[in-house]
Amino acid sequence: MSKIDYKQAGVDYGKIDPLKILAQRAAAATAGNLQRHGLTEIAASRGESAYLVDCGDFLLASITECLGTKALVADATRQLTGRTYYDLIAQDTLAMAINDLITVGATPVSVHAYWAAGGSGWFDDAKRAQDLVDGWRAACDRCGVAWGGGETPALAGVVVEDRIDLAASCVGLVRPRTRLTLGERLAPGDQIVLLASSGIHANGVSLARKLAERLPAGYGTRLPDGSLYGEALLAPTTLYAPVTEALFQAGIVPHYQANITGHGWRKIMRHQATLTYRFHTLPKVPEVLRFLQHETGSDDRAAYGNLNMGAGYALFVAAGDAERTVRIAADAGVPALLAGRVEAGPKQVVIEPLALTFGADDLHVRA
Amino acid sequence: MSKIDYKQAGVDYGKIDPLKILAQRAAAATAGNLQRHGLTEIAASRGESAYLVDCGDFLLASITECLGTKALVADATRQLTGRTYYDLIAQDTLAMAINDLITVGATPVSVHAYWAAGGSGWFDDAKRAQDLVDGWRAACDRCGVAWGGGETPALAGVVVEDRIDLAASCVGLVRPRTRLTLGERLAPGDQIVLLASSGIHANGVSLARKLAERLPAGYGTRLPDGSLYGEALLAPTTLYAPVTEALFQAGIVPHYQANITGHGWRKIMRHQATLTYRFHTLPKVPEVLRFLQHETGSDDRAAYGNLNMGAGYALFVAAGDAERTVRIAADAGVPALLAGRVEAGPKQVVIEPLALTFGADDLHVRA
Repeated sequence: MSKIDYKQAGVDYGKIDPLKILAQRAAAATAGNLQRHGLTEIAASRGESAYLVDCGDFLLASITECLGTKALVADATRQLTGRTYYDLIAQDTLAMAINDLITVGATPVSVHAYWAAGGSGWFDDAKRAQDLVDGWRAACDRCGVAWGGGETPALAGVVVEDRIDLAASCVGLVRPRTRLTLGERLAPGDQIVLLASSGIHANGVSLARKLAERLPAGYGTRLPDGSLYGEALLAPTTLYAPVTEALFQAGIVPHYQANITGHGWRKIMRHQATLTYRFHTLPKVPEVLRFLQHETGSDDRAAYGNLNMGAGYALFVAAGDAERTVRIAADAGVPALLAGRVEAGPKQVVIEPLALTFGADDLHVRA
Repeated sequence: MSKIDYKQAGVDYGKIDPLKILAQRAAAATAGNLQRHGLTEIAASRGESAYLVDCGDFLLASITECLGTKALVADATRQLTGRTYYDLIAQDTLAMAINDLITVGATPVSVHAYWAAGGSGWFDDAKRAQDLVDGWRAACDRCGVAWGGGETPALAGVVVEDRIDLAASCVGLVRPRTRLTLGERLAPGDQIVLLASSGIHANGVSLARKLAERLPAGYGTRLPDGSLYGEALLAPTTLYAPVTEALFQAGIVPHYQANITGHGWRKIMRHQATLTYRFHTLPKVPEVLRFLQHETGSDDRAAYGNLNMGAGYALFVAAGDAERTVRIAADAGVPALLAGRVEAGPKQVVIEPLALTFGADDLHVRA
């Protein structure tokens, strides 16, 4: 089978990025509006995964994120098995927002659901609707957030018929302010703890869908471990808020945190500091990602540069906190690995076991 | 021309509502999660237009809202005139979120954009993208909010090709807590000040689109005042935050507030109290709504029960504050009218000049 890359899979970052840059610049120019209310923004949060407003005793964090196209995988796999999987993609959607929000040190407080269907008919399917509601609630309970409300529009003509556009917004508090983890203390000598992913999460799904089109059995293809490709893709994204809350309770404030989503391991160098991130140990690669890499003919550079490859979230902690961080994460139900360290040096991610390096030029997430 | 009603226009509230009720019940059950963080929800905010969490010295308000299908009107009208109108529908999208958030007494602080396109190609149109960014920023500036960030996914297969699903989330603070306007003080004797709408805003758009399909000249039809139907529909939703902030600065805290959106004037009785809302004076009906009512063969019950008919926002204030409220709104750039009063009596909206009454059975917005 010939190689598949991201442009073939329908996502052309070169086209989206100019708009993103326009929007980021215009957004930054609105910061002064907060003065009318006696507030200021935390300027360093622009370019990070959640936005922060300084409210004096506390910081207000907010984020809006979408699921992407993973609902299409659920819809197709349902044709094979009869399960709706909307309980699982509900968790994915919330994870996209919550896992970003917590990177700045915030406790997630409340979420809103955004479920935009391709027409009123979408809601006729009572089982699917019930699964969506049940999964959403369970993920809220796991993260200790209140589900505040939401929007369930029927958007015939905007959303494709019998499809749904799922997104979530999340609000949180950094309180006390000393919980802030924007990276001021990130420094050589810090250790990098990687939290395990459950599978593809919700990034790289366009590539995975493209592969399904090419496989003779599509989502019904059996992986080496016997699972169905479609079901393996639908393993829900791990929720990392229980770990970050447990760390805070234990008195550990990471120096920096990165949610590993689009851009894969390149996201590890998201902070603007000039530092080298060197890995000596790699997490186990989930079966579905190993399969995806192999079947799409991707080399390690393409795989680790776009997929999480087993590492869903990175914690950069003081060397003395590293072992305890691993234990606390495991106690909170998330396998963790002391995988690397921060060093003085050029901005790069060095993955020694694979002899693979990503340089600063490989990542552009800021205007 | 025969009558058009909402079901024909593609929105079947009977189908959406069962899911809404499921979701509302599940959401309410997550309130206890806040205890882990030493927080509680303001239970009375459930069923209101924004969700509130009690954080001690302040209340945290949040909301997510979508534009609906108004982008389709912009796309079609652009074919006639060459303007994109995305600066205007950007304002509409923000208004949907901000005008809801302020009803609880919150100062809007920051917003996130959610712009989900039907494919990367949507972003190729630089003029349209620039208008969207410019309009979004201008609306933020008018409301004194910081644009914190956003999400711009390309969702081929979920969003229709060359269309975009626009939504906004907004976070705010009720600080001091005495600004809270959930209606505890709403009582007979209160006066009702109506703030003018600019046109259809973003509710009733499905009906307006259906009408465009039936008109021989479609969106190019001239209204009696000479304007194009499409352009008249695209008058951007009035932003009411400058009024609510000016009222607070002047020491006026309304007893209750209602954003008049879907369900039109029925929304005026949204509070759960058993009270009669009696109107003696009506605002001027925008030309486009008069045209829409006439051409769809809607009677006053259908028109006032589904469209804003000139009243975009209702302020319920102490009798002694009413005249000053009207002046402060006008000074903030929004025409206002002392239009009615709150009375003891059954739950109903009585519009005397039209001999029209909506009873409690006409509105179901709570689980």
